[in-house]
Amino acid sequence: MLMRMSTLFLRTLREDPVEAEVASHKLLVRAGYVRRAAPGIYTWLPLGLKVLRKIEGIVREEMDAAGAQEVHFPALLPREPYEATNRWSDYGDGIFKLKDRKGADYLLAPTHEEMFTLLVKDLYSSYKDLPLSIYQIQTKYRDEARPRAGILRGREFTMKDSYSFDVDDAGLEKSYELHREAYVRIFARLGLDFVIVSAMSGAMGGSRSEEFLHPTAIGEDTFVRSPGGYAANVEAVTTLAPAPIPFEGLPAAHVEDTPDTPTIETLVAVSNERHPRADRPWTAADTLKNVIVVLKHPDGTREPLAIGVPGDREVDAKRLEAALSPAEVEPFEAADFAKHPALVKGYIGPGVLGSENASGIRYLVDPRVVDGTAWVTGADAPGRHVYDLVAGRDFTPDGFVEAAEVKEGDPAPDGSGPLELARGIEIGHIFALGRRFAQALDLKVLDENGKQVVVTMGSYGIGVTRAMACVAEGNHDDKGLVWPRALAPADVHVVATGKDAAVFETAERIAAELQAQGVEVLYDDRPKVSPGVKFKDAELIGVPTVLVVGKGLAEGTVELKDRRSGDSEQVPVAEAVNRVTAVVRG
Amino acid sequence: MLMRMSTLFLRTLREDPVEAEVASHKLLVRAGYVRRAAPGIYTWLPLGLKVLRKIEGIVREEMDAAGAQEVHFPALLPREPYEATNRWSDYGDGIFKLKDRKGADYLLAPTHEEMFTLLVKDLYSSYKDLPLSIYQIQTKYRDEARPRAGILRGREFTMKDSYSFDVDDAGLEKSYELHREAYVRIFARLGLDFVIVSAMSGAMGGSRSEEFLHPTAIGEDTFVRSPGGYAANVEAVTTLAPAPIPFEGLPAAHVEDTPDTPTIETLVAVSNERHPRADRPWTAADTLKNVIVVLKHPDGTREPLAIGVPGDREVDAKRLEAALSPAEVEPFEAADFAKHPALVKGYIGPGVLGSENASGIRYLVDPRVVDGTAWVTGADAPGRHVYDLVAGRDFTPDGFVEAAEVKEGDPAPDGSGPLELARGIEIGHIFALGRRFAQALDLKVLDENGKQVVVTMGSYGIGVTRAMACVAEGNHDDKGLVWPRALAPADVHVVATGKDAAVFETAERIAAELQAQGVEVLYDDRPKVSPGVKFKDAELIGVPTVLVVGKGLAEGTVELKDRRSGDSEQVPVAEAVNRVTAVVRG
Repeated sequence: MLMRMSTLFLRTLREDPVEAEVASHKLLVRAGYVRRAAPGIYTWLPLGLKVLRKIEGIVREEMDAAGAQEVHFPALLPREPYEATNRWSDYGDGIFKLKDRKGADYLLAPTHEEMFTLLVKDLYSSYKDLPLSIYQIQTKYRDEARPRAGILRGREFTMKDSYSFDVDDAGLEKSYELHREAYVRIFARLGLDFVIVSAMSGAMGGSRSEEFLHPTAIGEDTFVRSPGGYAANVEAVTTLAPAPIPFEGLPAAHVEDTPDTPTIETLVAVSNERHPRADRPWTAADTLKNVIVVLKHPDGTREPLAIGVPGDREVDAKRLEAALSPAEVEPFEAADFAKHPALVKGYIGPGVLGSENASGIRYLVDPRVVDGTAWVTGADAPGRHVYDLVAGRDFTPDGFVEAAEVKEGDPAPDGSGPLELARGIEIGHIFALGRRFAQALDLKVLDENGKQVVVTMGSYGIGVTRAMACVAEGNHDDKGLVWPRALAPADVHVVATGKDAAVFETAERIAAELQAQGVEVLYDDRPKVSPGVKFKDAELIGVPTVLVVGKGLAEGTVELKDRRSGDSEQVPVAEAVNRVTAVVRG
Repeated sequence: MLMRMSTLFLRTLREDPVEAEVASHKLLVRAGYVRRAAPGIYTWLPLGLKVLRKIEGIVREEMDAAGAQEVHFPALLPREPYEATNRWSDYGDGIFKLKDRKGADYLLAPTHEEMFTLLVKDLYSSYKDLPLSIYQIQTKYRDEARPRAGILRGREFTMKDSYSFDVDDAGLEKSYELHREAYVRIFARLGLDFVIVSAMSGAMGGSRSEEFLHPTAIGEDTFVRSPGGYAANVEAVTTLAPAPIPFEGLPAAHVEDTPDTPTIETLVAVSNERHPRADRPWTAADTLKNVIVVLKHPDGTREPLAIGVPGDREVDAKRLEAALSPAEVEPFEAADFAKHPALVKGYIGPGVLGSENASGIRYLVDPRVVDGTAWVTGADAPGRHVYDLVAGRDFTPDGFVEAAEVKEGDPAPDGSGPLELARGIEIGHIFALGRRFAQALDLKVLDENGKQVVVTMGSYGIGVTRAMACVAEGNHDDKGLVWPRALAPADVHVVATGKDAAVFETAERIAAELQAQGVEVLYDDRPKVSPGVKFKDAELIGVPTVLVVGKGLAEGTVELKDRRSGDSEQVPVAEAVNRVTAVVRG
């Protein structure tokens, strides 16, 4: 392959695109890899397409090696299968929906569980046909509320999605492991750091789910890890609940005046001032904060819900949403308060919360609120709080919920030490889906005994275009991109500088010889462009090896540069092709 | 590559799909290449995807060789650019439209002229940047009224579309020729017969347009060709108009009673009975038939239009639509007649037709209605016709229109002999678009004199999935598909038959050795499937070379079969790999 800069469809830009905030977005646009067509929707220019195809090639090789078979589904799909699994409504505004000329409903698929399930149902009928893993590398659509960061979170993007089909749980476990191992190999070959974290399966249902996160400060996902190896998406962190405390000897609950204490901060201050305790001062951790939200269920019904968390922690909206999915969480507004006179804003307590109590509002509490723990909390009257209110003795919530924020230093649930918080980008996700989709779409096979059994499935995804953004994010400097060798749009960037005809002749010959050796060459043959501009473009584009044919030619040398280290050396012209070939082949 | 039938995601079917009418549709589904997901929307199974990728590979190689550069545009596009060129409305129901969560209008692109134009405008500004040809192989969407014949006319399909950009007409001519030559090479490599026909440029505008039609009885397009080499899409056929006839000596027009003659047939009969002429009987060709339609313009306005054609020809709806595009043609209904009392149904004539006459309806006639031709036509009164009505003397139409049907034996417009009618499928289309899109979207560059000039463009398409259907259509027998070597999903189909362990060991070894030689192997290793079923599957799937390892093994031979000819020969086991490799490499 030989690409000439004189004709290559490319214009590098010196200015960052105005809407760009992260380095990969700025550089991929400036270096002419992608170009915005609409919000969250990008066009791939020749250089970008070459990198994308190399990533797809690596993904394909590893999926094939893991025994998965490639297929290709439509992106435009009918409503009915997604209706059968409730995802037509569960996805809400997150998917693009449309009608055809006959008024039939369609969607642009965000993921393909339903169609793969139906296809396997269509073709297969026996346990002998399984296990089966099939995958596609295909265009996906999600109508993101906030498309951002270029191809990092787009509305049209490329995904590798695969699906495994097994007759029993042991088979699913094996298919899951095969995917997990393939993903480890893929991300290693892409040169992408990753952490595998436990994840919520959320709207997907299922038994086991892990995310491959690329750790980066610009990540939208927060995850935790412990010194002992625990790692989880923040939504999936489970709280290490303390042991219950026997009720014997605990003081009785007592209501006290606490004027003007609608916040935890004021409550703690007033408590220490007017109701101090002997052994130590009151802190926010002694208080139980009750927050009311509205759950919007997929069927459209709205239900108020009370959440009780220790007063030193906020309710984490993402954890709450994940815990209650597929219901959506909305604020409990003034109008809602008006309908519930038992709720005294700022002083709401377990006295009125709970299905069986005055408000009738379901009441879920943090796992730390175990039986025998004593709390300072609202007494359901203005300016009044109750002290020494003991869980399990004085009130009984309807259940527990993982909704409180996770804090740096919290103990890992598996006892592996204090948690550290970090940020990352989801580049892969593996789900042991189980039987949810097969059940909904009636995918059964005959087992060894001639009995119909529901198939158990896994679903596995890699964000291919997103992975490319992550690679760019992690491989650049202030001058531009620095591609890993396996993904670079070319193996070597040959730059001819100056006006000397001999320079261009030599560069031309070297480029041709490299091409003949199977080396992919980007050749800057532009006759009237200054060396400075050419060098800047080479740095911006980021081909890992640069060969400059220029004024050194008078002494019979060319310059071999390493883009990443910046190291360079003069090489005799006669050795240039062999040296480049050796460097490129590593 | 080694695919094993024991694990390949494939189920061949013995029955044709009920909705299938053409062979390619039946066989591609039965042999497990594609599977219907929704009307006109197909899923690609492993074997189908392999063939499709080989076709794409050939297209890509030839486009690259022609100097075109590959890019990739989104399928989901914003309304605005299509609004600027009027195509948002011109396409009517033919495109899928949708709204995003913010209510902004989008479409699923049927073709990408607008986006390519805008991208070039975005990046380029000088004549020095041109010529440029860029292409993509990408998913397209059209909401066909009647999706049919499987992947032959789908609603989601793969297309290679390219666009050329030149500073002047000579440049466009050259880009057009480069594409034309590349297309000739591509279809030759795909083994597809084709005829290049002149075409209407229709809604695309532009100066020159040719279609690559694959001649086949199941084709939806009618085309004509002459012994002298003229070939055109039926919509594009121009009529060889006769020379005008001097008015001198022509009899005067006279109105006659012709009771109960609302049709051409009755008119001819009554004319010969009641108003015979001396030299020869009246025929339908002597009459002028006037048909009224309603034009629906893109802006929504409706205009009645009268079409006059010789009575021995029908108005051809496709030619009429093409001639009047982008307006659509609708019937002139009873309610419309009620609004035009001057029109006497069955007896309408040039006496009332035309912008200047009583009806005020625009009147276009067939090119054969030249000055001096005399006609029998309606006299605008019940049961009355006018004879010897001479065009140019007694009436003057508003213009000409190519709307009459083309008949076998009509003269070619270039004088190259009588036309033959045939049917074909459009597999490629090349347009010299000219400046329409560049003008609408303001794509200009500075020319050599520093003056802004509008760029001139070409647009070129190949229906990739449709080409595959055409190859299947032209390469099958009653037992199944017979792929050309360059497109087959595998080079050789190794079939192990019987229950003998030695057979499977030998077949396994041969398959592995072939794979090591770079031969693509489909290996039927299914242990409990009868030889009859395996042979039927091999015939249905259509890999061109089949190697059977079976009972001949006792004598040290295997059977080498040619799928197309059915020829077979026994080959010594030791020579099997070399023989297959030689056959495969041609």
